[in-house]
Amino acid sequence: MSTHYTAELLPKEKVFRDPVHDYIHIQYRIIMDLINTPEFQRLRRIKQLGTSSYTFHGAEHSRFNHSLGVYEIARRICDKFVRNYPSKEPGDGLWDDGERLVTLCAALLHDIGHGPFSHTFEKIFDTDHEAITIEIITSPDTEINRILQQIGPDFPNQVAAVIAKTYDNPQVVQLISSQIDADRMDYLLRDAYYSGVTYGNFDLTRILRVIRPYKNGIAFDISGMHAVEDYIVSRYQMYMQIYFHPVSRGMEVVLSHLLKRAKDVYLDEQAEFRHTATFLTPFFKQTWTLKDYLRLDDGVLTTYFNHWLDEKDPILNDLAYRFVNRHPFKSVRYTKGRDDATLERMSALIERMGFNRDYYTAVNNSYDLPYDLYRPYQATTRTQIELVQKNGSFLELSQASSIVSALTGKVRGDERFYFPREITHNDEEAGINLFESLSQEFSTFFENDEILPTQQTGGTL
Amino acid sequence: MSTHYTAELLPKEKVFRDPVHDYIHIQYRIIMDLINTPEFQRLRRIKQLGTSSYTFHGAEHSRFNHSLGVYEIARRICDKFVRNYPSKEPGDGLWDDGERLVTLCAALLHDIGHGPFSHTFEKIFDTDHEAITIEIITSPDTEINRILQQIGPDFPNQVAAVIAKTYDNPQVVQLISSQIDADRMDYLLRDAYYSGVTYGNFDLTRILRVIRPYKNGIAFDISGMHAVEDYIVSRYQMYMQIYFHPVSRGMEVVLSHLLKRAKDVYLDEQAEFRHTATFLTPFFKQTWTLKDYLRLDDGVLTTYFNHWLDEKDPILNDLAYRFVNRHPFKSVRYTKGRDDATLERMSALIERMGFNRDYYTAVNNSYDLPYDLYRPYQATTRTQIELVQKNGSFLELSQASSIVSALTGKVRGDERFYFPREITHNDEEAGINLFESLSQEFSTFFENDEILPTQQTGGTL
Amino acid sequence: MSTHYTAELLPKEKVFRDPVHDYIHIQYRIIMDLINTPEFQRLRRIKQLGTSSYTFHGAEHSRFNHSLGVYEIARRICDKFVRNYPSKEPGDGLWDDGERLVTLCAALLHDIGHGPFSHTFEKIFDTDHEAITIEIITSPDTEINRILQQIGPDFPNQVAAVIAKTYDNPQVVQLISSQIDADRMDYLLRDAYYSGVTYGNFDLTRILRVIRPYKNGIAFDISGMHAVEDYIVSRYQMYMQIYFHPVSRGMEVVLSHLLKRAKDVYLDEQAEFRHTATFLTPFFKQTWTLKDYLRLDDGVLTTYFNHWLDEKDPILNDLAYRFVNRHPFKSVRYTKGRDDATLERMSALIERMGFNRDYYTAVNNSYDLPYDLYRPYQATTRTQIELVQKNGSFLELSQASSIVSALTGKVRGDERFYFPREITHNDEEAGINLFESLSQEFSTFFENDEILPTQQTGGTL
Amino acid sequence: MSTHYTAELLPKEKVFRDPVHDYIHIQYRIIMDLINTPEFQRLRRIKQLGTSSYTFHGAEHSRFNHSLGVYEIARRICDKFVRNYPSKEPGDGLWDDGERLVTLCAALLHDIGHGPFSHTFEKIFDTDHEAITIEIITSPDTEINRILQQIGPDFPNQVAAVIAKTYDNPQVVQLISSQIDADRMDYLLRDAYYSGVTYGNFDLTRILRVIRPYKNGIAFDISGMHAVEDYIVSRYQMYMQIYFHPVSRGMEVVLSHLLKRAKDVYLDEQAEFRHTATFLTPFFKQTWTLKDYLRLDDGVLTTYFNHWLDEKDPILNDLAYRFVNRHPFKSVRYTKGRDDATLERMSALIERMGFNRDYYTAVNNSYDLPYDLYRPYQATTRTQIELVQKNGSFLELSQASSIVSALTGKVRGDERFYFPREITHNDEEAGINLFESLSQEFSTFFENDEILPTQQTGGTL
Repeated sequence: MSTHYTAELLPKEKVFRDPVHDYIHIQYRIIMDLINTPEFQRLRRIKQLGTSSYTFHGAEHSRFNHSLGVYEIARRICDKFVRNYPSKEPGDGLWDDGERLVTLCAALLHDIGHGPFSHTFEKIFDTDHEAITIEIITSPDTEINRILQQIGPDFPNQVAAVIAKTYDNPQVVQLISSQIDADRMDYLLRDAYYSGVTYGNFDLTRILRVIRPYKNGIAFDISGMHAVEDYIVSRYQMYMQIYFHPVSRGMEVVLSHLLKRAKDVYLDEQAEFRHTATFLTPFFKQTWTLKDYLRLDDGVLTTYFNHWLDEKDPILNDLAYRFVNRHPFKSVRYTKGRDDATLERMSALIERMGFNRDYYTAVNNSYDLPYDLYRPYQATTRTQIELVQKNGSFLELSQASSIVSALTGKVRGDERFYFPREITHNDEEAGINLFESLSQEFSTFFENDEILPTQQTGGTL
Repeated sequence: MSTHYTAELLPKEKVFRDPVHDYIHIQYRIIMDLINTPEFQRLRRIKQLGTSSYTFHGAEHSRFNHSLGVYEIARRICDKFVRNYPSKEPGDGLWDDGERLVTLCAALLHDIGHGPFSHTFEKIFDTDHEAITIEIITSPDTEINRILQQIGPDFPNQVAAVIAKTYDNPQVVQLISSQIDADRMDYLLRDAYYSGVTYGNFDLTRILRVIRPYKNGIAFDISGMHAVEDYIVSRYQMYMQIYFHPVSRGMEVVLSHLLKRAKDVYLDEQAEFRHTATFLTPFFKQTWTLKDYLRLDDGVLTTYFNHWLDEKDPILNDLAYRFVNRHPFKSVRYTKGRDDATLERMSALIERMGFNRDYYTAVNNSYDLPYDLYRPYQATTRTQIELVQKNGSFLELSQASSIVSALTGKVRGDERFYFPREITHNDEEAGINLFESLSQEFSTFFENDEILPTQQTGGTL
Repeated sequence: MSTHYTAELLPKEKVFRDPVHDYIHIQYRIIMDLINTPEFQRLRRIKQLGTSSYTFHGAEHSRFNHSLGVYEIARRICDKFVRNYPSKEPGDGLWDDGERLVTLCAALLHDIGHGPFSHTFEKIFDTDHEAITIEIITSPDTEINRILQQIGPDFPNQVAAVIAKTYDNPQVVQLISSQIDADRMDYLLRDAYYSGVTYGNFDLTRILRVIRPYKNGIAFDISGMHAVEDYIVSRYQMYMQIYFHPVSRGMEVVLSHLLKRAKDVYLDEQAEFRHTATFLTPFFKQTWTLKDYLRLDDGVLTTYFNHWLDEKDPILNDLAYRFVNRHPFKSVRYTKGRDDATLERMSALIERMGFNRDYYTAVNNSYDLPYDLYRPYQATTRTQIELVQKNGSFLELSQASSIVSALTGKVRGDERFYFPREITHNDEEAGINLFESLSQEFSTFFENDEILPTQQTGGTL
Repeated sequence: MSTHYTAELLPKEKVFRDPVHDYIHIQYRIIMDLINTPEFQRLRRIKQLGTSSYTFHGAEHSRFNHSLGVYEIARRICDKFVRNYPSKEPGDGLWDDGERLVTLCAALLHDIGHGPFSHTFEKIFDTDHEAITIEIITSPDTEINRILQQIGPDFPNQVAAVIAKTYDNPQVVQLISSQIDADRMDYLLRDAYYSGVTYGNFDLTRILRVIRPYKNGIAFDISGMHAVEDYIVSRYQMYMQIYFHPVSRGMEVVLSHLLKRAKDVYLDEQAEFRHTATFLTPFFKQTWTLKDYLRLDDGVLTTYFNHWLDEKDPILNDLAYRFVNRHPFKSVRYTKGRDDATLERMSALIERMGFNRDYYTAVNNSYDLPYDLYRPYQATTRTQIELVQKNGSFLELSQASSIVSALTGKVRGDERFYFPREITHNDEEAGINLFESLSQEFSTFFENDEILPTQQTGGTL
């Protein structure tokens, strides 16, 4: 059962000017204090979109920026809920404003465990930003925890429970993580604003008008069906156009290989690793602690990469150069299974052109499930989006919207095969005309940005 | 005399999606190549507004972002000029499109010499971003120069001349630097967009409609007078509200003292400087070269600051902590001359509270001249803004606008005295209640954010 | 075969400030002259969205406004086409800029035949705005025709042919009317801007980048697939949320009954029709000419309605009051066939409450086909949207987009039964409590805004 | 002394979608009822900007639209006030929320007395929209009054008193009318939005954050000084660029002469006035009542003008044609006193060209005082804008802002002399080449859009 926490109000509301929400409003001292911790300030040094800013140069915003936005949306929803749906007695399915504080803290801190280029970094160093988020909140060694403790000894656990989705009030959990939560609403709007595209725009004000609590979580007045539908389409569009952009993934592939090479070189006792990588060493050695993790940020990584430009190892050196100076790998779509043999042949060609295939080829898959029903027998279930009809009955979103229905339960995205751009780019000056015939053969394997089915390809091994 | 350069067109125009200008359009291969140089890509790692993002969290955009914008505005102006005012014979005061290439390159590269937190860095390490800009363009050691050379052996010098304002065509010079140039137009719009304020908005489309070339530079149709007036007011507002914000300057002061301390500690042979600062060492030792300079970026500096959190020197350590975790110094306005004695008394109090005044107090002045007439007898003259009347005669802007007239020739801004926030903030937990009486005395010196004239202050030394 | 027309350029480009496109640019004198005709100026007095402004108060813009917008989009497309895809020889499938003038005129004039509240008016008075558009363009009695004739004697016919879709160049036809044409692109953006919703926004700039001519019309680079997809979704959303809004249709129903009643009363020799309706008389009598038609506008109709508030006929008087003072009929959704008997019973109840069912009930259907393939064997075929792949082959849009596929070939909208609001609104003051039991019975027929299947309804006849 | 009124809340808040404020929120039934009155609905048929839409075609919005906006800003201010500055005891200078209802009603109704093209209409027919506003509110014959009466018998008088500035609470009065009130804030933003210009944009959110009540009215935190300054500049810019636009005034002049001619012809017993002008007749005869006034709207006037196209009187007929089909008079600036003789000579020339100077020439002055101090000894005093400093003391705006100071107390605008465009436009087809020499002489009187001082002019009488 949730405890009702109270907290000190600031003598005067503070605001942060925000390009997406105009103002972020802070009424509680604890929110101000959490923002001022080193753990939270560190989010200023971690880009929200990782390598996407190499494709959309405007999208240089940080996770700090986004975390404030999620907090603000959660705050506005609490305001709507307490005004329009205040609980009168426990279990009436309405909003209990005693949950506000835990909601706001969870909203603000939901991404606190992110590190630099999280998704790539995690694969190489086996970190887990969600587990680290929980640890930052519950470990007595962080300032975040110290401040949360001021509210009550169990308060950090409550906040962590919301983020871990084990909190007992489903309304609070769903506000922070569900198929239409404060996190996603903020990042769609924010990433669209910063990248300069319009696809992520949906009608937040209208959604805030129709969102409402009910016994099992949050739902939406049916009058706002089209606003919710529009949000799902925006989400889908942003994934297709921004988050899955092949060029950003081409930088991710370079980054991934670069980190892997650095680790391999470091662990190779024969190799000489001259320059500093102090903060990364515990990760190479797999001895890292939370304190080590909190030392990392985008600047630390790129600074080390800059230093590695002077390293002797040619692969480390070359991959660092490609990342620092933005030379993404190129790619073509392929179909798993069907094209495996072709990929093998292409990789062999790449190797013949002098590239170590472990560090110079990659497959990269980007998939997203724009929306799904609740599917009780599946490993990962999702809370479906419910619409409330005039007579109080519920209607699941895809029943009301054929657009959503078309997107429901279908993963979207593609599989791509990555390789150095110069392989297909016949540039004499770059001195690779030696490989012209190999390069031409390589190009016969694909057309229209996609690998051709085997019978259509030419070339010989 | 300017040479007419030609350049290869891309087979297909390329675009960058931009939140301010919608698209940046690239037609020449050389522009693409310049963007792809390490020197230019480095601008991605340098924030446009330095410490301002600590006040306006949205304003995290880079100089890369802005440089593309300046290029795009210059490109649009060239398009307008060649369509509406094409030169028919030399000296007719119209636009000679042979100047396009040098204009576009100068626009793109005008900020290439900026380093991390330039204005602060320059004061400590005696660097000069304008001189470095020229050097990057003209030095045979840069990729920028190598690419510019492809157009012609003297082309780098021409581009540099535009930036240095020594180029013989005043139209080109004024497009890049004057009181209403492509640079300023972009940064006002861009900084406003990213910080989320409206003050920087002015009617760019209208200004692009009324801008025109004439014998001595660029001028504006009188029908667009109010659009130009609005631009001047926007510029003034952005300086007052964003660029001169006391809190951002409070971070600048911390940064400045931090860099100074690092240098002092490094040069102090007794001091132990354990951690790495590889890329900064040549600056401590004053032996830096262009190559050293190009290694620096925001991430390098903050990474070193992060390392210095482990340094022994308590001042270095403390200032690094303040910067990394955003603890700006606090400030009050003062009046030079009138308040000198008061400042001395305040500094003495600060010292009594245990702070080394060299590293824990500062004065910081922010001044700007929103607009000025051409004043021939002054050391620094400015090209005044000219309006073209229907009969072809000219009218200087402040003659037509009483708002501009009110801003003409008057510097704007303020002088502030900075000190650690905790001096006035009576926070028991911080353990400084020992100094409570000193702190109270300190607070008697100012009111309404301003130091009081001497006779009104209390306190004793 | 199309003739190449040329036209006089204005000495200086003229512009209209436009909130949607920033500026409308006019380069040809003929365009200026067409805008200045009485026929075109008349569009200022006809609202673009008819009764929608009674639901979305911001949407008060005129067809004048929209017509300029369509012209501007067509102009921008011509500019793109001539720059990127100029025809080199007849039949090469590229853009022949000799078509520009006819394209621009057709774009500007495509709606010139609209009258006040066209869709409603047409049903009552058997007018046809498309036929009238052609007539205005080709009849020697209009100023429009006189100006078009200046270009060439057959020019009016060419312009009319484009609008009638009989013009021989399919590129020109499809720019003006197809599933993604200048008309639709403008009205979606414009209606969204004025009504204050975001649904109609799509990425016009991107679509203008990827649109291209080909032999059989216009197509889109596959790189812009998601922008086209987004446009289709925007279109669907605008229909669902704005154009089909039940309240606007409730005003349409009132208007329709009002016009019908006026006509019936006028034609009824017994009835006394005191007040003026000069400009409507030829329509009552079915003797109208083009000149009569061009006298009508929104103001004329509402002025007559205002006069009719003094008419003796109580139905005319009452319906005029409802329209002038915005009292729309209320509605519920019904299913044709299934609910016919229920509708009959509801209408009977309404009659028992004292309302003439001919003037106080109505069914109103709103349907739209958001997108469709080309279906050769259907009466009305549509030009499908084609995407151009890298190797030049075509892909029909719904093959590439599952969202579009979900919308393809399916009509959207609903059927509604309309009746006076006071029937269900038990308002004592309105003096209808006499009918309270009838009113309660009436309400048993529907739930959740929809008529219940028969077995579920209560009530007796 | 103000009475505390209470009012019934709607069961559920209603909203109107609004392009400027996103949503207009209605909580009280009385507000909904007032909006639904015929008097208020009539505002849908009266354009906010009169003839400005003939220059800025986007600006077709109505006074209905604006009135809702003023209401919404007032509502938001009340919300801020009651949250941040709630009065604890009478006379404490804080906000008494018992004033909310009267404030909201006054905000909604402040423009209810406007008629079609008010400013022009008033001059010809001697009506007074402010007096009529009061009458509509207080006359027992209106629905507005009937609804206001439901709150209390004196409530209509209270609402009227606020608008008449005689209400005893200066906070309420200043919210509705002062130099920075809800009315002006809405129309600047709204007129800018609809006309598509950026000049009217200021930072409403920030102003709503810094506005506060005090004993003598409303004031602003000094931290928001630049937002208030920006508002004053926006106001000035909108007047200069939109409201005073010479072309819109050229339509106003035509309208004014047209109404005058209609009246003159009607009153001339010899003249034959065939067509209807039913609703105008009481104004011609000066016998109009409030009921007559409420019958008028833009559509009524333009419908009559349309009918007058068939009138025999050539001047009436011609002026009607010019207005209906947008043929504004042309103008040049002149200086009163200095240019009187020149004007006389120009008018004489016009008369020689066959135009009756009473109906074909005019002088039109547009002046505004962007901001002023309180000047106790002047006939019309203004409440100056006060800034509240940290220590609670006040500072008058122009003391803090040199931009505002430059605009303070200085009227802005110009005097123009109007005449038919064809006088200077030498167009053979129009058949006026007979007057070519007169026309050329006419043109010698001005240059750069301004009449030349006498000694410089040529021409003879």
